[in-house]
Formats: sequence, C-alpha cells, structure tokens
Amino acid sequence: MASPILGYLDPEFLAVMDNTMALLRHLFQTENELSITLPGTGMSAMEAAVCNVVQPGDEVVVGIHGFFGQRLAEIVERHGGTAVRVEVGFGQVIRADQIEVALDAHPDAKMVAVVHGETSAGIRQPLKDIGKLVREREKLFLVDTVCSLGGAHIPVDEYLIDICYSGGQKCIGGPAGISCITLNDRAMAVIDSRSRPVDTWYLDLTLIRKYWLSDRGYHHTAPGSLIYALHEALRLVQEEGLQERFARHQKCGDLLKAGLTQLGLELFGDPENRLPMLTCVMIPDGVDDAAVRGRLLQDYGIEIVGGFGPLKGKAWRIGLMGYSCSERNVHYLIAALREIL
Amino acid sequence: MASPILGYLDPEFLAVMDNTMALLRHLFQTENELSITLPGTGMSAMEAAVCNVVQPGDEVVVGIHGFFGQRLAEIVERHGGTAVRVEVGFGQVIRADQIEVALDAHPDAKMVAVVHGETSAGIRQPLKDIGKLVREREKLFLVDTVCSLGGAHIPVDEYLIDICYSGGQKCIGGPAGISCITLNDRAMAVIDSRSRPVDTWYLDLTLIRKYWLSDRGYHHTAPGSLIYALHEALRLVQEEGLQERFARHQKCGDLLKAGLTQLGLELFGDPENRLPMLTCVMIPDGVDDAAVRGRLLQDYGIEIVGGFGPLKGKAWRIGLMGYSCSERNVHYLIAALREIL
Repeated sequence: MASPILGYLDPEFLAVMDNTMALLRHLFQTENELSITLPGTGMSAMEAAVCNVVQPGDEVVVGIHGFFGQRLAEIVERHGGTAVRVEVGFGQVIRADQIEVALDAHPDAKMVAVVHGETSAGIRQPLKDIGKLVREREKLFLVDTVCSLGGAHIPVDEYLIDICYSGGQKCIGGPAGISCITLNDRAMAVIDSRSRPVDTWYLDLTLIRKYWLSDRGYHHTAPGSLIYALHEALRLVQEEGLQERFARHQKCGDLLKAGLTQLGLELFGDPENRLPMLTCVMIPDGVDDAAVRGRLLQDYGIEIVGGFGPLKGKAWRIGLMGYSCSERNVHYLIAALREIL
Repeated sequence: MASPILGYLDPEFLAVMDNTMALLRHLFQTENELSITLPGTGMSAMEAAVCNVVQPGDEVVVGIHGFFGQRLAEIVERHGGTAVRVEVGFGQVIRADQIEVALDAHPDAKMVAVVHGETSAGIRQPLKDIGKLVREREKLFLVDTVCSLGGAHIPVDEYLIDICYSGGQKCIGGPAGISCITLNDRAMAVIDSRSRPVDTWYLDLTLIRKYWLSDRGYHHTAPGSLIYALHEALRLVQEEGLQERFARHQKCGDLLKAGLTQLGLELFGDPENRLPMLTCVMIPDGVDDAAVRGRLLQDYGIEIVGGFGPLKGKAWRIGLMGYSCSERNVHYLIAALREIL
C-alpha cells in the first residue's frame, strides 16, 4: 500500500496488471481471459455483474437465502430487469430443482444468480448441480463469492460459472475498496450483443476490458496502491497453495464450531452447508448481545458482529478469513467467550 | 495507507469519517452537511453526480470544451437523460450567455453541468456568472473539479454550486481509487423527490448518505485505508492553508508557462483562462512526441503526458499538482526539456 505510484499507463504498471490477471485466474481456477479488478468494493462488482448483463425487461432468476441474495434481486430491478425470486429460509440452501421450477416457469430468463457464501446466515450454497442445469438451459450463471473466494474451493470453469466476483478484503486478505471479477466468453458475448449501452458508465465492462486487455484505453485512473496490495495478497495466496489455504479455513472453521458447541452454544443453519470462514451462532437466552461484543472488543481486541435481518439481536457472526484465520485466534476467542459468558 | 484497519462501524472509524467530512467542507468551502467520500475513482463521482439527479427523459445542459465535458454528456445519456450540448472549441471557455441561450431553448432542463478544470485542454472554466444564472433559473449547477480542487479557489457555496466532486489523487494529493463529493440541500431535495430509485445501486447517494450521516446503515465496506490516506491529505491541505496552496499552484504554473515560452514553445488555449495545475503546450514542428516523453521518463524520471482528442500527437500536458507542484520540479523539467530539445 505504501509503494510509490506509477502512471496508469506506465509499462511497469501494465506489467503489474498483467500479473494480477494471471494470479486472479489461478484463484478463480479459470482460463477466462477477462479476470480483472474493478475500482470499487465488492458491491461494485455485484452491480457490474448484474448491470452489464441486464437490460430493461430481462428476467433473472435469483436464489435468495439471505441478505445478499435480496440485494442481488434489488440490483436486477434497479436496472430495469425482473427478479424471479427463488427464496428459501435463512439458514437453508437453494436446491437445483427449485431453480429448475423457476426456469420452467420463466423460459426466457437470461441468467441465474446465487450467492455462494451468504455471510448474513453463514451458509455455503452448493453450486455444481445448479451450474449444470443452467448450462443445459443455455442461461448465464452468476455466482457471488465476496465472502468465500480464497477460503473455499470454487473452481469457476469446472462448476460452469459464467460470471464470478469477490471483494478484496475477505478471504483474499487484500484491501477494501477494490474487487475482482471474472467472465467467460459466453458472458462477454451476451454483453457484447446488448441492444443499448450499459446504464452505468463507471462499471461498463466493455470499456474496462479495453483498459485491461486490448488498447489500454483510458477509462478511469487505476487505483494503483490497491492493485499493488491486491497483487501481493494474491501472490501470498499462490505461495500458500489453494488447497492448503482452503484446508486452513476449513480446519479453523471446524475448530471454532466445535469450541462454540462445547461452550453450550447452538450453531445456526443447515449443518450440511455451513461456511468455514463465517460462523453464525445463536446468542444464548438472557445474554446481552451488545455487552458481550463490547467486552470482546474492549478487553480482548476481538471484533465479532451481530446478526442480520431475522437474526438481528439473536445471533453472532464470527469471521475467520485470510490472515485472521488461525487456530490461535480460535483458541483465544473461545477462551474469551468462556470468561465473559 | 499502511495503518491498521478498523471495522466500518467501529466508533473510532466513524470519528475518522466525521473528521473527513469536516475537512472536506473546509476544502470545498461549503456548509453542506453531505460532504463525503465515494468508494471509487473521480469517474465514479462524475457518475454519481449525474445518475442521482437524472431520470429518463430529463434534460441536462452540458458545457463542453474538452474530453471530460463530452464524458459528462455521455453519462447523462447512459441514464436515459438528454444532454443539451453547449459546445465550444478545445482551448476555449463556455460563456454564461451561451448557457442562457440553451436554457431559453430548453426551459425544462433540470441541471447545468460544466467541468472547471478541463485537463484535456488545460483550461479553467469561469463559474461565477454561470452559477448566478443557473440559480436564477432554479436549476441545479453541477461542477466537475477532479483536476482542480485543492489547487484553485473554488468556493462552492459562494459560486452557487449545488453539486461538486473531485478525485483523490490530483491537487488534493491523496490516493487514487477514492473520490469526494458535496451536495447542498437543493440538490438532495431533487434527489429525494425522484419518482423512481437511482438506476445505479452502488452510487445511490440516498443509501450512501445513511452510512455517513444518519443511521450508519451498511451499504458498502468502507475502503478504510483510502479514507485514512485521504483524511491525511486533507489535513495537510488545511495545515498549508487554502489560499497559500492555491497561490503555490498559481506561482508554479506561471513559472512553468514562462519557462516553456522562453524555450520558444507555444502554449495552448485561451490565455485568460489557463489552468495553473495543468499546462497544455504545443509540440514544436519536427519534434518526436513519444521520443521526448520517453527520454524525460527514462533519463530524468519525469512523466508528462500526451494530448487528448484533437491535440493527440500535437501537444503535451504537464501536471503540477499537490506535492509535485514545486518550483524545483519546474526548474528541473525546464532544464531537462532544454537539453532534450
């Protein structure tokens, strides 16, 4: 973050961009040429993934099992599309046959969108069966991995994902304020065949692609420091090894869940599909949510967060992502919670 | 940039946000409560300024005297508006009476938009008379100061500007990837009375306002490092003093123009309205554009940039912004150019 800045067209900076793309392809486990960063947070990537595809009147099937699925549907509608909502309860996952019913009812739908790591509920959405179904129906498959990329196995090409994005600061361990996205040729062909330009100029991938891939045309001033930092984070991901990194997240997540259970706390959501990097646990009866979180932060320097939506005031959410995902941190939190509770 | 990160709702981080707003009000010379950063580059601020106001069918009078005015008009049209173009030649400024003619012909226009520092032509657009006119006609006045804020006197309230924005990395001297914007109550009243939500969720100022001003509701993960760095840059602006900083930019800009003239080079554009922080100078006949810029970069570590649009291959553009704006840098560049030419 503190390295000197180069011009956004400096040959040495262009080389950093090229390396960043190569590292992103490794992380996304994809051959997609267009694997790039976007100059905004993970939410800008969510908007870019939607607004580049959706034109007014388009239908998109959106799987919803928490806050971020709802947001995806809202963004589809902001851009004039219709969100066909396939909604399951908080803590559940969306089944492929539920998506199939929606596609049968909406055969013209252009895309199916789901959130892989639903941080609001601590749930990991299975992708493989939905990916096959969506490809058979010749739709696009969009997957949000803001919470999970870098901490769980998400092979974009193998799972037949057409558009996938993430933030910089979660399991990748880079800075906030930058995000990354990958799109395959199927997705770009749909975008290139739009009948009108994308309504959001800043996130128009046909313009951003020119800067990253072809004529290096000016679109925005690259956030150099953020790209350097994300590049370094991605290099560390590669150095650790993808499978080793996923295993670390799984091991620490399992350790945390075991520790919480030993404390007598109840984990939230479908036991078969809990995220490793984000654990959602019910607050015991009679325990003061804010007081416990305040003591953790003040006395132990540990920040855990409250529940979202229907879990507000009822659950805690505990992240173990990237650098912070260590056995030592798990032991420390469990010890602190034991003392406080 | 290298300071440890706080959570986006951490009380200490909220205090940094509050201080940043106070420093931005100082820099924009405004009382506007909504004086905030946006999680994207200066171009995201341009889009936010337009897309929050414009609904499909709205007319916006856009003054165009270079590349960035054209871009403003394009963004108006992306969002379904009609851009009423008031176009003058590269190197000229837009006169208030030209805007008046456009408003007479388009009495329902919602907004007038101009670029203060047109970096593509090195031209400083006068604002005072246009501001008065626009206020009399009860329209909104949008001014782009990406290139110039922090390096020239732009008193937002005194000039009756309703929406004003800038990037982080130019005369403010902060990082790229973050931008700042201020809107007064007139502008927010127009935005609050929209008949439909902003088409771009990521840049919806009614949502972003909630995070900065009222209930601190989650919209995006704040780019903490960028906000810290911008905060520090703004603190340095305040420490130097606005008038002292503007005078430094003016003095160095004048020195550069005098030095270039002494070298026999011809300055571009209206002599009465040249920017201090960005000087546009014609390339002498027979001189190889790329070769000179290459030698400056390789042998002297100085980067100057080529011309845009009609000036491509015909002019150089030389920035003196923020930290880089020093008499020493001017002397060094002039000496280098003398040797090379």
